[in-house]
Amino acid sequence: MFTVREIANALGAEAAGNLDLRIARAAEPQEATADALAMAMSPKYAEALKDGAARVALVWEGADWQAMGLEAAVFVTRPRLAMSGVTRMLDLGQRETAGIHASAVIDPSAKIGANVTIGPLTVVGPDAVIGDGALIGAHCFIGADVTIGKDANLREMVSIGARVSIGDRFRAQPGARIAADGFSYVTPETSGVENARKTLGDQGDTKAQSWVRIHSLGSVRIGDDVEVGANCTIDNGTIRDTVIGNGTKLDNQVHVGHNCRIGNDCLLCGQTGLSGSVDIGDNVVLGGQCGVADNVFIGDRVIAGGGTKILSNVPAGRVMMGYPAVKMDTHTDMYKVQRRLPRLMRDIEALKKAVFK
Amino acid sequence: MFTVREIANALGAEAAGNLDLRIARAAEPQEATADALAMAMSPKYAEALKDGAARVALVWEGADWQAMGLEAAVFVTRPRLAMSGVTRMLDLGQRETAGIHASAVIDPSAKIGANVTIGPLTVVGPDAVIGDGALIGAHCFIGADVTIGKDANLREMVSIGARVSIGDRFRAQPGARIAADGFSYVTPETSGVENARKTLGDQGDTKAQSWVRIHSLGSVRIGDDVEVGANCTIDNGTIRDTVIGNGTKLDNQVHVGHNCRIGNDCLLCGQTGLSGSVDIGDNVVLGGQCGVADNVFIGDRVIAGGGTKILSNVPAGRVMMGYPAVKMDTHTDMYKVQRRLPRLMRDIEALKKAVFK
Amino acid sequence: MFTVREIANALGAEAAGNLDLRIARAAEPQEATADALAMAMSPKYAEALKDGAARVALVWEGADWQAMGLEAAVFVTRPRLAMSGVTRMLDLGQRETAGIHASAVIDPSAKIGANVTIGPLTVVGPDAVIGDGALIGAHCFIGADVTIGKDANLREMVSIGARVSIGDRFRAQPGARIAADGFSYVTPETSGVENARKTLGDQGDTKAQSWVRIHSLGSVRIGDDVEVGANCTIDNGTIRDTVIGNGTKLDNQVHVGHNCRIGNDCLLCGQTGLSGSVDIGDNVVLGGQCGVADNVFIGDRVIAGGGTKILSNVPAGRVMMGYPAVKMDTHTDMYKVQRRLPRLMRDIEALKKAVFK
Repeated sequence: MFTVREIANALGAEAAGNLDLRIARAAEPQEATADALAMAMSPKYAEALKDGAARVALVWEGADWQAMGLEAAVFVTRPRLAMSGVTRMLDLGQRETAGIHASAVIDPSAKIGANVTIGPLTVVGPDAVIGDGALIGAHCFIGADVTIGKDANLREMVSIGARVSIGDRFRAQPGARIAADGFSYVTPETSGVENARKTLGDQGDTKAQSWVRIHSLGSVRIGDDVEVGANCTIDNGTIRDTVIGNGTKLDNQVHVGHNCRIGNDCLLCGQTGLSGSVDIGDNVVLGGQCGVADNVFIGDRVIAGGGTKILSNVPAGRVMMGYPAVKMDTHTDMYKVQRRLPRLMRDIEALKKAVFK
Repeated sequence: MFTVREIANALGAEAAGNLDLRIARAAEPQEATADALAMAMSPKYAEALKDGAARVALVWEGADWQAMGLEAAVFVTRPRLAMSGVTRMLDLGQRETAGIHASAVIDPSAKIGANVTIGPLTVVGPDAVIGDGALIGAHCFIGADVTIGKDANLREMVSIGARVSIGDRFRAQPGARIAADGFSYVTPETSGVENARKTLGDQGDTKAQSWVRIHSLGSVRIGDDVEVGANCTIDNGTIRDTVIGNGTKLDNQVHVGHNCRIGNDCLLCGQTGLSGSVDIGDNVVLGGQCGVADNVFIGDRVIAGGGTKILSNVPAGRVMMGYPAVKMDTHTDMYKVQRRLPRLMRDIEALKKAVFK
Repeated sequence: MFTVREIANALGAEAAGNLDLRIARAAEPQEATADALAMAMSPKYAEALKDGAARVALVWEGADWQAMGLEAAVFVTRPRLAMSGVTRMLDLGQRETAGIHASAVIDPSAKIGANVTIGPLTVVGPDAVIGDGALIGAHCFIGADVTIGKDANLREMVSIGARVSIGDRFRAQPGARIAADGFSYVTPETSGVENARKTLGDQGDTKAQSWVRIHSLGSVRIGDDVEVGANCTIDNGTIRDTVIGNGTKLDNQVHVGHNCRIGNDCLLCGQTGLSGSVDIGDNVVLGGQCGVADNVFIGDRVIAGGGTKILSNVPAGRVMMGYPAVKMDTHTDMYKVQRRLPRLMRDIEALKKAVFK
């Protein structure tokens, strides 16, 4: 429970009305109970306040909160930023019991920091190091020689393979897989794939062969403030480590192949996949279900719309779309023409009749 | 073991021949043993009966079963519906041992219904409620304050985060992840992504910034008769719950983002992904690897072919295809023209020569 | 630690210089320590030797290793094949403790071979058979009646459902899911999807219905030398087993639907998905994020580029690309024309003006 005053102070926001009202939860306006803070940050949402029982709301600057029937209001200028502050205050977490659960299997050589919570049936391997303040859920696996910084937050069933190093404030959602072996094979002689890549489509005279495994000697190195979504997979590097920079966030079911290097403050949205040895700069945003071919370089601040398949290098600052990826405005132009194609064909038929008949 | 009579009765189907023959399993005709029920529901499959040892088969109405060398036959009009009935009868399950395994870690405050089986090493959190008749596999995690209705069937390694509520007859496959935190971030000031969305491609003069987390206060609310595939991920809502309606089925590796609302009796096929706040009606079918952009509305009875990327609202009843999604017949027309494009170009060259030379 | 001589012998490669130097690890040239074997298999990489401290390197045939400042060199003709041999020798694994961990839950009826390691909290079900030399990580689940051949290597949190049979030298990465139930449903009467498939887009006059489950009676049958990536999902067959041939490798997050048959020595790259009843020959390579529609047949030695969606049968030996998939050279032609479309439109406008005005 927080007072309206405490919430406004935490957000650095102006507030008006009864600042001593106490808030137990956040709610959409139409579902707000009397102890809820309603999210009414635009006139469109404020309409629904009358369908709920809110006495306090987050509202836009200059909103006539009294006319909305409220007893107090907090004024916000950037609604989603205010949401960030409010949701952090009101997050109920997973109700973990503090301390190390008796059923956890922790190697005696592991070094566990101060104020660490480890859930039931979690395994911590030899020589693993877990920093102060970590909150580790049930059924996790922390492999041998893993290092995790301060204030980590791991949900249930996260696995981290041997020798991974991770910075501070790491977050991982259920089923995230760090440090699987890379997918790397070779045939004894030249394969059809090698030929088809060179010729863009011709396999040539290769014979069918079995695949020989290239093992992963590298591990995964993750910076500070990284978050990894549910059922993500991040592969070990072959010789050196796969690297993820500070502040980068991966959504659910993102796949990062071996040897990839991802810079700082990137967002990779749901089900996006990076092949091996992809090199991504800082502040890159890849929408959902994007794909990047192996060995491709993507410059700083590139943005790709959902479903974009990037098959070749992209210079810094570009906004991309399509399969294969092109600049978003090129994509828009190409798409417009495509939709006009049936009419174009009729025009050409008419021209042919007029000119050649 | 069932007699032919029992099977015919369960299917509500006519049968002929020796109805006392006993059936231990179902089989494809060519692999059928003498105690198997062969699936020979069309003349194409009936051919292969002679390669197996079946004495009984499911056949089409009017089939000359005696000429096929059978001793008994069950006549079906809708083959896949008959398969449903037969496979339900003959399902061997996972051979779970009834009761609660000694190694399970169950919080004393959890309420476990009658006739519940809980497998080895499963964790049930505080105040969780599990309805009668549930069958819960090994290595599952049921979080704090979760409610699950009657007759649930969870395979191994399913995880369900805090405060999720689920109706009756819920099924979840291995590794399904319910209630991961939503993927929701904001930059302190306007970001390049916000600009690029408004302008369809221009990031404008934004500076590089780090991402600030928006926590998930909502949970996930799931109706009756819902089934969730292996390694699916369903995220918590931000303020309210993410919602999945009655009778909806999710295939493996489907991703449902925060705040989505899915109606009743939908099918989402393998690897399909919904961004945040997608709103889907009833009886919608999305083929494999479909994607839906955030905040998109999809009306009742929409069908999308495999690989369709839906980037804007779709009215009820439409059949869609493509990236970006268009009506399926539009897609067919566009595609036909595309294949004729190289010839079109030659026509235009000829016209230019004739007209302008 | 190996000597240069031992490494050269293992690779069947020529070597020169001080063959008694001892190697502790492999490294990229610029990061090589004095006890590392540098990977300098082309002049491009050899440049960076001067930034590291390597005394030994893998180099190309005829390389002037002394001029590079090395004390010894191993000459390789096919660099990735040499990588395979070197990485196998130097793989550190996960530091598992040999033997069966006290916390594992093993059914007394399970048959465990000689020299088997089973990690903490792994569950082995009734009548499961695990061959000699298996290395099974923490938190795995091996279901009832499962058979696994010799020398398996399972990382943590792998699950294998009842009645699966697997050959020798099986490898599975964290979170791989073998034998989930198939995704198979039917409506009591004809559904809109059935009509839309027949008419390519028209649902006709069907009514909204609920889905009835078709259970999976089959299991999964896997050959020798198969490898399955992290968080993959392989579904049970409906009547017969889903089948994966010898030597086939699946990357992370690959989905294989019920009843699929995959031949020998195939590679399915990251996030590729097969619908139900897909039939794939031998030596097929599907790039990342490929999709294959249900009941499609793909011949031997087919190669598909990343993101290809295969919606109809593909004859042996083809190289495919696109959505929907076409031959790669057709795709290249179509794409070239598409990029020229805006210019084409202007040409047609000019022609119309000249001819019709």
